[in-house]
Amino acid sequence: MLAIPLRKSRETLASFVTRRFRTTLSRCVTFENSGRPTEVLRITEVPLPPLTDTTLHLRFLAAPVNPADINQVEGVYPISARSLPDVDGFIGGNEGVAEVVAVGERAAQQLNVQPGDWVLPAVPAFGTWRTYAAAEIHEVQKIPKEGLTALQAATLAVNPCTAYRMLKDFVQLQPGDTVVQNGANSAVGQAVIQIARAWGIRTLNVIRDRPNLEELSRQLRDMGADWVIRDTDLRSAETRALFASGNARKPFLALNCVGGKAATDMLRLLGNGGSFVTYGAMSRQPLTLPASAFIFKDISAHGYWMTRWMEDKREGRREERAQMLNELIGMLRAGTLWPPIAEVTRWGHELQLEASLDSMRSIVTAAGAGLAGKKQVMLMHDVE
Amino acid sequence: MLAIPLRKSRETLASFVTRRFRTTLSRCVTFENSGRPTEVLRITEVPLPPLTDTTLHLRFLAAPVNPADINQVEGVYPISARSLPDVDGFIGGNEGVAEVVAVGERAAQQLNVQPGDWVLPAVPAFGTWRTYAAAEIHEVQKIPKEGLTALQAATLAVNPCTAYRMLKDFVQLQPGDTVVQNGANSAVGQAVIQIARAWGIRTLNVIRDRPNLEELSRQLRDMGADWVIRDTDLRSAETRALFASGNARKPFLALNCVGGKAATDMLRLLGNGGSFVTYGAMSRQPLTLPASAFIFKDISAHGYWMTRWMEDKREGRREERAQMLNELIGMLRAGTLWPPIAEVTRWGHELQLEASLDSMRSIVTAAGAGLAGKKQVMLMHDVE
Repeated sequence: MLAIPLRKSRETLASFVTRRFRTTLSRCVTFENSGRPTEVLRITEVPLPPLTDTTLHLRFLAAPVNPADINQVEGVYPISARSLPDVDGFIGGNEGVAEVVAVGERAAQQLNVQPGDWVLPAVPAFGTWRTYAAAEIHEVQKIPKEGLTALQAATLAVNPCTAYRMLKDFVQLQPGDTVVQNGANSAVGQAVIQIARAWGIRTLNVIRDRPNLEELSRQLRDMGADWVIRDTDLRSAETRALFASGNARKPFLALNCVGGKAATDMLRLLGNGGSFVTYGAMSRQPLTLPASAFIFKDISAHGYWMTRWMEDKREGRREERAQMLNELIGMLRAGTLWPPIAEVTRWGHELQLEASLDSMRSIVTAAGAGLAGKKQVMLMHDVE
Repeated sequence: MLAIPLRKSRETLASFVTRRFRTTLSRCVTFENSGRPTEVLRITEVPLPPLTDTTLHLRFLAAPVNPADINQVEGVYPISARSLPDVDGFIGGNEGVAEVVAVGERAAQQLNVQPGDWVLPAVPAFGTWRTYAAAEIHEVQKIPKEGLTALQAATLAVNPCTAYRMLKDFVQLQPGDTVVQNGANSAVGQAVIQIARAWGIRTLNVIRDRPNLEELSRQLRDMGADWVIRDTDLRSAETRALFASGNARKPFLALNCVGGKAATDMLRLLGNGGSFVTYGAMSRQPLTLPASAFIFKDISAHGYWMTRWMEDKREGRREERAQMLNELIGMLRAGTLWPPIAEVTRWGHELQLEASLDSMRSIVTAAGAGLAGKKQVMLMHDVE
């Protein structure tokens, strides 16, 4: 449909399409080949396909740049990014929040949405780094937007949901139970602290030693962390005494995003029959686990990946997700769950294309600095 | 009850008791302190306590010396050996078969046993290295002895049961499915091959390279092994091709008794969602497992310990064990399950006490030579 003249110069595409087709142009962050994001990312503008009975037109409000998104661009992530018609290559971004601009009749009925409502992607690799998108019914899920900021909604689906599911799906926790986690200052770790606190579950939080240790410990305790220790304290007499004294219940759930020795030491704290759940590998070291923990202590080790949970086609999964999102939104509104500390960058049509690419390069560079940094969030449109 | 004169000389104990109390003397392999079995083991003779309404008198026929028994004597096993009244310290042995000599009325009813029946211990750390024993109702379980040898019955409760449960309790296997295991020539490994074969499940068997590789491979194939490879072949193109070609189904169950690199390489063969079950650590190296296998492939790692299964108090466990033993005994009778290659040593009252201790030292030395050697079995009484 898009004829040759459109390919000549990307600069003329937007005005050409608007003039000729009277349709919306979406500005997208794309890449043709995997590689370093600062080198392979491009900006592409494509018109939205016409609305149909079963589609929605969306206006993206905000989208974060998560470590997994970066890995996807680098080609070291197990699922590839989305390819779009009329785009050479792929479009980046898995998470974000969008406002419904227009909706086909059947889509409106099935999803119970109307223009102005907010939706989150309901599938992995939606391609959220764009200003506008068209979506099929199964690709989005409505959320109640009242009282939410775009930043809160855009960062809800990955980290808080990961924390929520890990606290629910492996061990039946009761109020007063203890959970131990490393990388406690990561975005997921912070969500674990806050959700656990809301549910009456106590957390033993492990962080690496660092210059601002006291400050970070205080921040985590302010969020609701019951105990904060360094990874080098995991085998200390004080840590063992915590459980020996009856001050704390022995943990039966350990959440690991670090690996290496700190993970091994954390595993030793688990009670017999406990679950050790890995969702990251910040140290880039494998897990070294003693056979005796499996054989004699009946520890089991598992992995958690939000994408797999999303892709699971079992009956009722969509309703289960709605229930989880509603519960988390309730916590956001109540102020018991804070959004991550974020750096928000405007990334809309007000930028020239070249500036748009420069901006994206800065964002991915900051995001690549690691989990310890602030979360990078693109802001495409203001909430009206 | 036993007065001082009895302690003076062990040589006179047997004749003294028989003359004075007209009761049965049991010769036991005991130890007061943990340590090297050849150094700490002693021979002790004690009279059986009088029979009561709820007890049985047993005549042990045969008992193996398993690696776990050795570890128990060394004090490096998580459950300690049994202590007995009138014995200083502990009595060794966890597995064995005994014939009922006499049985109290209530015990006879509840267990449906009479003199001449065979029983296995139903609790860990029964103390099977003795010629006679008294047992409570809950401590033993009757087995149908018809067509069984004492060697078959004495080696049934640990290794074949471990193999049976690992094939049943982690993954729902269907005929035609593949299971991969290392240490395939261990006693459990051999039982896995044979039970899997009986159930129509195919086995990929991993062994270490060795001078008699061809001979061992042939032995395992004769037992029913579908494929036998060296641990160094785990990542070879041929091994990968086996599954890529559709000749074999990708395994979703891996059984590990080795650890170290061979275990890591075996884990890589598992399909998404597969279970990795550890029941031993022959290499004495920990498990080194990539975080990505847990996160992205949804592999879970578990341990299996027969003792824990035995100790589990859940409803119906005793019946479940009877069902398992009956099924395995059926395989033994049918010749589809062979007892392990064993070295059988007579160890009865015909030996002088000193010779009895020397004999036991030889047995534990041979047993300590490792899983690669023959299973060492003590033969206390002939089957009458």
